[in-house]
Amino acid sequence: MKDFIFECKTKIVFGRRKEDETGRLVKKYADKILICCGQGSVKRSGLFERVVKSLETAGVSYVEFGGAQPNPRLRLVQEGIELCRRENIRFLLAIGGGSVIDTAKAIALGVPYEGNVWDFYCGKQEPVTALPVGCVLTLPATGSESSVFSVITNEETERKIGYGNELLRPVFAILNPELTYTLPPYQTACGCVDIMMHTMERYFDNETNVEFIDRLSEGLLKTMIKRSLEVIENPSDYEVRADIMWAGAISHNGLLETGRVGDWASHSIEHELGAIYDIAHGAGLAVIFPAWCRYVYKHNIKRFVQFAVRVMGVEEDFENPEKTALEGIEKIENLFCRLGMPTRMKDLNIDDSRFYEMADKCSEHDTVKTGNLYPLNRNDIVEILRLTM
Amino acid sequence: MKDFIFECKTKIVFGRRKEDETGRLVKKYADKILICCGQGSVKRSGLFERVVKSLETAGVSYVEFGGAQPNPRLRLVQEGIELCRRENIRFLLAIGGGSVIDTAKAIALGVPYEGNVWDFYCGKQEPVTALPVGCVLTLPATGSESSVFSVITNEETERKIGYGNELLRPVFAILNPELTYTLPPYQTACGCVDIMMHTMERYFDNETNVEFIDRLSEGLLKTMIKRSLEVIENPSDYEVRADIMWAGAISHNGLLETGRVGDWASHSIEHELGAIYDIAHGAGLAVIFPAWCRYVYKHNIKRFVQFAVRVMGVEEDFENPEKTALEGIEKIENLFCRLGMPTRMKDLNIDDSRFYEMADKCSEHDTVKTGNLYPLNRNDIVEILRLTM
Repeated sequence: MKDFIFECKTKIVFGRRKEDETGRLVKKYADKILICCGQGSVKRSGLFERVVKSLETAGVSYVEFGGAQPNPRLRLVQEGIELCRRENIRFLLAIGGGSVIDTAKAIALGVPYEGNVWDFYCGKQEPVTALPVGCVLTLPATGSESSVFSVITNEETERKIGYGNELLRPVFAILNPELTYTLPPYQTACGCVDIMMHTMERYFDNETNVEFIDRLSEGLLKTMIKRSLEVIENPSDYEVRADIMWAGAISHNGLLETGRVGDWASHSIEHELGAIYDIAHGAGLAVIFPAWCRYVYKHNIKRFVQFAVRVMGVEEDFENPEKTALEGIEKIENLFCRLGMPTRMKDLNIDDSRFYEMADKCSEHDTVKTGNLYPLNRNDIVEILRLTM
Repeated sequence: MKDFIFECKTKIVFGRRKEDETGRLVKKYADKILICCGQGSVKRSGLFERVVKSLETAGVSYVEFGGAQPNPRLRLVQEGIELCRRENIRFLLAIGGGSVIDTAKAIALGVPYEGNVWDFYCGKQEPVTALPVGCVLTLPATGSESSVFSVITNEETERKIGYGNELLRPVFAILNPELTYTLPPYQTACGCVDIMMHTMERYFDNETNVEFIDRLSEGLLKTMIKRSLEVIENPSDYEVRADIMWAGAISHNGLLETGRVGDWASHSIEHELGAIYDIAHGAGLAVIFPAWCRYVYKHNIKRFVQFAVRVMGVEEDFENPEKTALEGIEKIENLFCRLGMPTRMKDLNIDDSRFYEMADKCSEHDTVKTGNLYPLNRNDIVEILRLTM
């Protein structure tokens, strides 16, 4: 187990109609805020209005800033930064899913910074401060509601980069499972895959003696396997939606990486895919991850056996660990299929024409390796992409 | 699943020699502090000196306040409050186990309050503020290092009462597993039982649809079963000590009670035992809990079956859930035995002469019920105590 610091300061307010408490929670930080939202669904659902009412009751005024979309864009972030400066805003409230929250976080970083906020994402600068962000979550998936991460796409360079900093951890997150009843099945399933992936990216590394965090991770994954299948059948089951929503936050708040590093190669490769093809993140991961598993499992077969047995319920073949490991990989791929996810590039209508380009970007022209369980070079990434055909 | 708020603000700094960072962590809060410690072991081990050196390097001066003991006393708390006022102290650093931290927390509550700090413990008053507390943990058990709780014994009235308030959550906790190598086996085992109990008290309630938190709880318990047996064999195994230490904090920081209430009857009964006989808390719990299980299991047999199968690895007898449930209870009792814990009152040299008195106090003369899975009246408590003979 590695040394670690763990501090998750996000206040989670969980339950039915908790969005009515937004005003009270915001009021501690500011009297005038920017509300970030997406493409209009929070208005159609009436959520926006309820939140605004709660803000008004608490005496908080707001400036509205809509338009955040999946794979959120740097250009929109820059507009938001300008708006905050013009309006002298000191707090951001995100109402939506990960894209909206990630946009709000990027704006929060950019407002007090004189240069281009993209500097932080590409590692040129370290921030010294950021505005506080709070959120009302409508789509459990990215875990952004209590994580330190923000993922932004620079549409000019076609780069999608995740940046993590404790300054980006929201001060509060309102989690009302009822708000997720109306999510389309495809988006729900993409979210479930993303939630599982945040734990699996951490679970698959070479750190030994992480028994406690392994057990918690396995518990989260077993819950998600059960609940992701149930939610497809019963999209308005509060208890099912509640487990998914809470697991989504815990999966990415840092607890499950205490004492270890994680791998993250699947996320890195998916980011290149998402930057070019603008597909749903969870769908891209459902394609990449099984291929990644099949490419690397021999480098840490014990871990893949443990995953197969403890998480996927595979009966261990003690004579043949390889068979057990592969059965586990097949089972997770089958789960993704049952959830209606793509598991091959053709399911996403993507051909192999830009594989080298993606591998080039991901490996920075073969100068940087990706992942920790087995660090991948440019050629490895191409091979993994080929396995997705 | 019930609605909940979860906010665990304690910064966990985990790993070898992390006590050397105490000064840097404290400096954010104060230039002059009170150091609470116990009966001298932190001085004999050299820990005190290392912490003091780190404080001096950071330019923090301190006043020393020793003497905290197991089942920490109200009288000492009151002395500490006076000392803080005299010395104009605004921050408390606890170096020790739960008793030391609980003493520091009680002092932190009392300093800004004009009345008797016991008022908070017996429910007469609600605090509006408290001094911040940080800690260097030497004994994983009570979880006080990142919990909202403090348990204090009023030696005059022979009452031991736990009080919980978000104001009591430490601002940081330094967790260095190496500091626990020299704990005597009995204390180590008592700590392991206490850690398991903090999760089991929450696990055993009647809330349904808590699948996610159940799975995390089961993961923690399975880890503790494995690690508690290993630590007896290898007291200086860093990895074993590390899992126990981290599990001890997570078990009681509130995560595993999100969405549920928990039972807590075993703790309440043990508090009466500890207030009179001054035994180790974990040892008292090892006696009370199996008796409690046998007395109440029929009121929620499904939960006891789930515990037996998922946590204790009992092969389920589908025809006979009662047999499965009882086998799980027997297995946890056997585990306590293997750890060298008492499981009967005679092992603690306690007879039945004060059972009625304890039941009277615990039930406030049969006016208040204890526990949630099956609320116990005075007579039930006496029956449970009889089962411990």
